[in-house]
Amino acid sequence: MIAEFSIVPVGKGVSIGRYVAECMKIVRDSGLDHELTPMGTILQGDHDRVMATISLCHKRVASMSDRVVTYIKIDDRRDERPMRKKVESVMEKL
Amino acid sequence: MIAEFSIVPVGKGVSIGRYVAECMKIVRDSGLDHELTPMGTILQGDHDRVMATISLCHKRVASMSDRVVTYIKIDDRRDERPMRKKVESVMEKL
Amino acid sequence: MIAEFSIVPVGKGVSIGRYVAECMKIVRDSGLDHELTPMGTILQGDHDRVMATISLCHKRVASMSDRVVTYIKIDDRRDERPMRKKVESVMEKL
Amino acid sequence: MIAEFSIVPVGKGVSIGRYVAECMKIVRDSGLDHELTPMGTILQGDHDRVMATISLCHKRVASMSDRVVTYIKIDDRRDERPMRKKVESVMEKL
Repeated sequence: MIAEFSIVPVGKGVSIGRYVAECMKIVRDSGLDHELTPMGTILQGDHDRVMATISLCHKRVASMSDRVVTYIKIDDRRDERPMRKKVESVMEKL
Repeated sequence: MIAEFSIVPVGKGVSIGRYVAECMKIVRDSGLDHELTPMGTILQGDHDRVMATISLCHKRVASMSDRVVTYIKIDDRRDERPMRKKVESVMEKL
Repeated sequence: MIAEFSIVPVGKGVSIGRYVAECMKIVRDSGLDHELTPMGTILQGDHDRVMATISLCHKRVASMSDRVVTYIKIDDRRDERPMRKKVESVMEKL
Repeated sequence: MIAEFSIVPVGKGVSIGRYVAECMKIVRDSGLDHELTPMGTILQGDHDRVMATISLCHKRVASMSDRVVTYIKIDDRRDERPMRKKVESVMEKL
């Protein structure tokens, strides 16, 4: 399963890199395949492990802020391929 | 915590009401406060219970389809109010 | 076409009802069918008019804040039905 | 302004790389800065040009399918930096 998430602490100022960095530590500790993009963090792995990691990140940022908005998008396909393959497969069609 | 989610089975035809109905059964069984909108399902409750319910729905639809795309948006604030209050509070400002 | 959107001003404090109210005024002026939910605003109408209305709302909130995060989800089907029908159609299946 | 979008044709089978490739052609023609990730396409540029490009992609996929679900996330900050800087800024904090 591949999932992308982003966590926005509301009311904590415009720079949120510090919160993203806290999440990246949790993501690295999870051992899951991951990729940081300019708009979010992408994880790949088993559903429960991916969701548990996102929940840990959400709770960490929520503990540092009075309001947190989190967005998660999951792409779950039976014949899953490594996440970089998804980009390559599009490039080949161009 | 309030969260909205929607689950789209890809490649299973245009009508997905059947899958939404499966999820609504799971949501009702959860006992969580909920609301079905034209664009998703809104849940309110403890983080872990809300996420567990969404995961159950996701897995249910994934078991009926070869590919599932799920979107989740969480709004988590310390001074949480009942979800209908959020709409009322905006209406009062108009 | 049906679309849901939500606009979060980042760094402007935890209460964002004031910004949602500004958007609701723009939405009402648009004349589009709409519904305010605890998690966003749903619009129904022609693609260009819906997107123009969301852009107006985004620009209005962006003019009041240094950073704005906006989420939009579009559900566009050829055999479109009124948005309340989507909820009814699920309820009938339960 | 930076925006990420993804377009899912519903009911057209599990492989959607062909539709993503159609969108990538439109994105390249737009001349906007862009990046394809395993979960979406990221664009950077002026609000109106970014939104017009996403609308073109949405309409293109909608013309090939009976139902299309499109997700857009916008991050609009006054002191905008190139999108790769967002990733670098997090990495420096680790």
